Amino acid sequence: MRLFCIAVWTCLLVLEGLLQLASCQPFQLDKSDAGLVRDCEANPPYLPPTVTNTSLRLSKLRVLMDSQNISVYMIPATDPHLSEYIAPRDARRAWMTGFTGSAGIAVVSRMKAALWTDGRYWVQAERQMDCNWELNKGETTIVDWIMTETKEREIVGADPFVFSIAEWENYQKPLLRGNRQFVAKENNLVDIIWAAERPPAPTDDIIKVPDEFLGRTWMMKVKEIRTQMKNNPYKPTAVLISALDETAWLFNLRGNDIPYNPFFQSYTLLTVDFIRLFVNDSRLPADIKTYLKTGCARAECVQLKAYTDIRQNLQDYVNGSVKIWIGREYTTYGVYEVIPESKLLIDRYSPVQIIKSVKDSREQKGLKEAHVRDAVAVIRYLVWLEKEVPNETETELSGADYLNNLRSEQKFSKGPSFETISASGLNAALAHYSPNSETNRKLNPDEMYLIDSGGQYLDGTTDITRTLHWGTPTDFQKEAYTRVLMGHIDLARSIFPAGTIGNVLDVWARHALWEVGLNYKHGTGHGIGNFLSVHEWPVGIGSSHTCQLQEGMFTSIEPGYYEDNKFGIRIEDIAMVVKAETKYTFGGIPYLTFEHVSLVPYERKLINVTIMNKPQIDWLNNYYEKVRKTMSPELQAQGLTEEYYWLQKHTEPFSHSVLVTYSLINLAGVLLGNFLLQGRLL
Amino acid sequence: MRLFCIAVWTCLLVLEGLLQLASCQPFQLDKSDAGLVRDCEANPPYLPPTVTNTSLRLSKLRVLMDSQNISVYMIPATDPHLSEYIAPRDARRAWMTGFTGSAGIAVVSRMKAALWTDGRYWVQAERQMDCNWELNKGETTIVDWIMTETKEREIVGADPFVFSIAEWENYQKPLLRGNRQFVAKENNLVDIIWAAERPPAPTDDIIKVPDEFLGRTWMMKVKEIRTQMKNNPYKPTAVLISALDETAWLFNLRGNDIPYNPFFQSYTLLTVDFIRLFVNDSRLPADIKTYLKTGCARAECVQLKAYTDIRQNLQDYVNGSVKIWIGREYTTYGVYEVIPESKLLIDRYSPVQIIKSVKDSREQKGLKEAHVRDAVAVIRYLVWLEKEVPNETETELSGADYLNNLRSEQKFSKGPSFETISASGLNAALAHYSPNSETNRKLNPDEMYLIDSGGQYLDGTTDITRTLHWGTPTDFQKEAYTRVLMGHIDLARSIFPAGTIGNVLDVWARHALWEVGLNYKHGTGHGIGNFLSVHEWPVGIGSSHTCQLQEGMFTSIEPGYYEDNKFGIRIEDIAMVVKAETKYTFGGIPYLTFEHVSLVPYERKLINVTIMNKPQIDWLNNYYEKVRKTMSPELQAQGLTEEYYWLQKHTEPFSHSVLVTYSLINLAGVLLGNFLLQGRLL
Repeated sequence: MRLFCIAVWTCLLVLEGLLQLASCQPFQLDKSDAGLVRDCEANPPYLPPTVTNTSLRLSKLRVLMDSQNISVYMIPATDPHLSEYIAPRDARRAWMTGFTGSAGIAVVSRMKAALWTDGRYWVQAERQMDCNWELNKGETTIVDWIMTETKEREIVGADPFVFSIAEWENYQKPLLRGNRQFVAKENNLVDIIWAAERPPAPTDDIIKVPDEFLGRTWMMKVKEIRTQMKNNPYKPTAVLISALDETAWLFNLRGNDIPYNPFFQSYTLLTVDFIRLFVNDSRLPADIKTYLKTGCARAECVQLKAYTDIRQNLQDYVNGSVKIWIGREYTTYGVYEVIPESKLLIDRYSPVQIIKSVKDSREQKGLKEAHVRDAVAVIRYLVWLEKEVPNETETELSGADYLNNLRSEQKFSKGPSFETISASGLNAALAHYSPNSETNRKLNPDEMYLIDSGGQYLDGTTDITRTLHWGTPTDFQKEAYTRVLMGHIDLARSIFPAGTIGNVLDVWARHALWEVGLNYKHGTGHGIGNFLSVHEWPVGIGSSHTCQLQEGMFTSIEPGYYEDNKFGIRIEDIAMVVKAETKYTFGGIPYLTFEHVSLVPYERKLINVTIMNKPQIDWLNNYYEKVRKTMSPELQAQGLTEEYYWLQKHTEPFSHSVLVTYSLINLAGVLLGNFLLQGRLL
Repeated sequence: MRLFCIAVWTCLLVLEGLLQLASCQPFQLDKSDAGLVRDCEANPPYLPPTVTNTSLRLSKLRVLMDSQNISVYMIPATDPHLSEYIAPRDARRAWMTGFTGSAGIAVVSRMKAALWTDGRYWVQAERQMDCNWELNKGETTIVDWIMTETKEREIVGADPFVFSIAEWENYQKPLLRGNRQFVAKENNLVDIIWAAERPPAPTDDIIKVPDEFLGRTWMMKVKEIRTQMKNNPYKPTAVLISALDETAWLFNLRGNDIPYNPFFQSYTLLTVDFIRLFVNDSRLPADIKTYLKTGCARAECVQLKAYTDIRQNLQDYVNGSVKIWIGREYTTYGVYEVIPESKLLIDRYSPVQIIKSVKDSREQKGLKEAHVRDAVAVIRYLVWLEKEVPNETETELSGADYLNNLRSEQKFSKGPSFETISASGLNAALAHYSPNSETNRKLNPDEMYLIDSGGQYLDGTTDITRTLHWGTPTDFQKEAYTRVLMGHIDLARSIFPAGTIGNVLDVWARHALWEVGLNYKHGTGHGIGNFLSVHEWPVGIGSSHTCQLQEGMFTSIEPGYYEDNKFGIRIEDIAMVVKAETKYTFGGIPYLTFEHVSLVPYERKLINVTIMNKPQIDWLNNYYEKVRKTMSPELQAQGLTEEYYWLQKHTEPFSHSVLVTYSLINLAGVLLGNFLLQGRLL
């Protein structure tokens, strides 16, 4: 899947003035948008039917602000666990502004209201926001805007439970430098005015991952974490778990509070003496309570606490002689501010996140098996497209639906792992695009088509992108696709010492593009979980990934190329980090490489082998052999004969015959070169 | 030059427990060290004549500590400008411990004294320190050691003028967490007991860089910096310049306070209203004062202030409505703590550092011309070695002296730019090695020899490494050398979009080694100045380099390989970042590549072209053509006939004949492969 969070993060940084605007791709309105977007300059202003009237909400908010002496109030789009996807009841920014895009922050002063979001959402914002709201396209930073809207010593307020520590400090420091106060208001003002309209807290039962998919019980995981605590030189007495996937992983439990991510709202405080799970008690059936040993008080049993008790409970705990270990990336400022500096041990990621990132053998098996079944669904989809697209009756949306259905037919399926990106022609040039009824484009044999999708299965989460063409691609399309594939392969076959940081390998995926002046503006890979997040940090490849790669980690490999208003290319597979065989082993540490886990052939029509080198073609043929060997019996077992024959055809090895020609030309060139060389030297 | 600072930095981080010990290469004592190192376990302890008796110094220090209620005192090896090389009067750690290595920190408690340094200095420390000192090889972190040596609420003291902001905070935070106080003591305790013995402050005249080498006057540079201040959204009113090379560059002035670096002790406070240079007034001759317009009070004139006045002056300045812009990397905590948070604008590097890193056209010309003259000296040295080494009368030291003399004969020479690394055989396995009378090894035709050296010239600073062999190298030596060269070439010919961070390109220099399980444990490149630092930040290639590469920047390219107790290989050249011609230009930003500025052929005997690919050989032949074309007339102009003929021989293009064989084998393989393929498919 396209690296949403990275892109958003980069773009937000841009908006906050920490990077140059050049990193964000501006999105211009064009004629086709007329009538669909607001026009606040017109008299009277023009508002399309897609906008939300926010006048009443804003005036209520300002009354509340006034009563608390707040001059500016900030409303980000995050939840108390800094989740990638959020529950409807946490969508405060969307409710307040009308704008439903995943990224962006709203800021309300006494007189003005403004939204900052990145370029990919500007049109959507112009369609969804009424004229109460300015759309700031990076003309000013949020802090500068606030500085203009306020006087010295005035108060800027915000809910610390929807800011990461770093975000909070990124506002706090410059506001302080500008003699403004930045004050934590734990009672979210939006919640107060949203009131009864706000979606209720989730009540669905929490479920257990079946034992057959587990390598470690939750007791084993608790033991592992406590060992890490013991071995840490700062001697932490507790780990505070804020990220929802960490608690889900730790207890082998899942919920459905959040779209695409099988998580439940919770915190865990795991200490040397006790384990406290903060979750709505009524959501745990009796058997889960037994499983968690909630009836006993020993260090190996789980005490249940109300979800909303976390802050008070922490406050009590820090009264003792304790040290709490947290991860900076997934802890909100609201939790952090409770812990005195002297009782804090802070790393970039919590130890749970790090332990989770190296999959045990059962988890590896689960991810691999999920990808075999997932490949069946994708291959069925490709076969279906090949037959249906020439009829020109299918669309991006109908295609996505069809694929989602195919996945749901596979064993252990638990729905899609993110919103399917089904993008034809110029729609695919927006790397983040998902179709809706207005943008929905007919699939046709003369356009490229990009399908980026994944599934949740009880044993693993999947994510794969293929770019297709059913007609005659242009030479440039073929060159761009082949170069994306060359980068994909060069990264996949790279060899590197254990502990190499993902960032360092990024260039492999880009250089075949760079050498002809092409590039893509997103990261190259992200971690993935077992029936957990499709984007699992900290593993990954790209500038924001600082994780040292180890055997047993999984990452996507997904270079792309996007030609504005024309087409988009991305080739994405999941790969596992495995040991490489090398002639020597300097420093006695293992050398690593990648093993592909995704098993679907690429678009043959778009591959121009004449610009690929021999190691790339060899890798491709080996991969196709593996796909054929693994998928053929699975397709046969599922009785998919047509797909079986399709697979044989689409995994035929690439003939090296072009290389024969190439070698002959090379040979001639070399002979000629030598001849000239001799001439020159003598 | 080997990236000293990076290596030291990495290793210190290790010692401080932020990274795993594995990153540091431990250095074991062997039998040959017996008698040369101390033996504190013996009864009575054995002390070689190389140790310093520190008993009196330590007892005086402890009396002072006691009088100020300090339980632990920390003594790092840095100066108030965080310089790479320091003046003798700043070598407090060396004086206190006896240990003279460039990296390492001493920590003294009431009862104990300990030194932390990285593995490359352990033997040296055992030879120079008496038994008052423990040598900590990473068994405990400094903070943990302090925690053991102190009780709650006790005071750890240090001089904030010898700590970077980050270093200070790295100690302050965990000590605070551990309920210890970390207190800034501006009067350095070592200085008090060092007293009259301490080398005096430098008094030598400060000189001006001749106009012919300058593209910009200091007034132009001041204007440029003030424009950046104006354009900055936070509206800084001043830039505080702490790094010595920044002040030297800004005023086009040089001094000789520090070995190898032509700097003078100073600070500059450049505001919108005035320019203050903090330097000992008596060091400026009348013409320099006129040149600086010290007689007037306008914003375009320089006010002279005493060097020691900086803190008080800053304290006065921050009373106004001001904002001071500083760079985090080269500002000490001692200066930083004076500036209230609300009056501070802090970036990683000061704007002066960033402006300086992009050389103007005159600076580019200067660096290129300096490297031509420098190459004459190096080529003369290589010719001399080829004749002298077989006689087995020359040594590492005599060779280094000879080369230094050759450099001094070149026009505009101002001495070496760092201590020459002249390392034969196993000595070269220590990447940092410089010879001394005890380690000095005879040069002989059966050993590899590594020479890493550079010069200061009025127009530019140089830095180059060549690895040589005059006998018959082993196959492994040839493979390792060739792979280092392949990495060097792959980086040199890489194409990347403007703004790429040096870190991202690092893999190019390593992958030819990685693919056979080899590696090197230092960075790949560093910036360089014009008669300034040989290691100029922030430009560079390696994990600590976050600088976005732009046209006109200069960096070294210096991969290596080191085989413990056997040999060391490094191939280092300086290259300029230049525009690349690409087929397309995605995003409208320029694509960049490197142009070599160093002009000395590599060791032909160590190159195995059969493992190189065609683009690598083509690059090598093009480079040799350039070396020949540029250096031949220079050698002739200097009347160096022998060197001229040597150069022709050593820059002969590599014949592609091996490639003919390779192509034929390849062709046969391809034909066979196709044959088998057909067989399998049919």
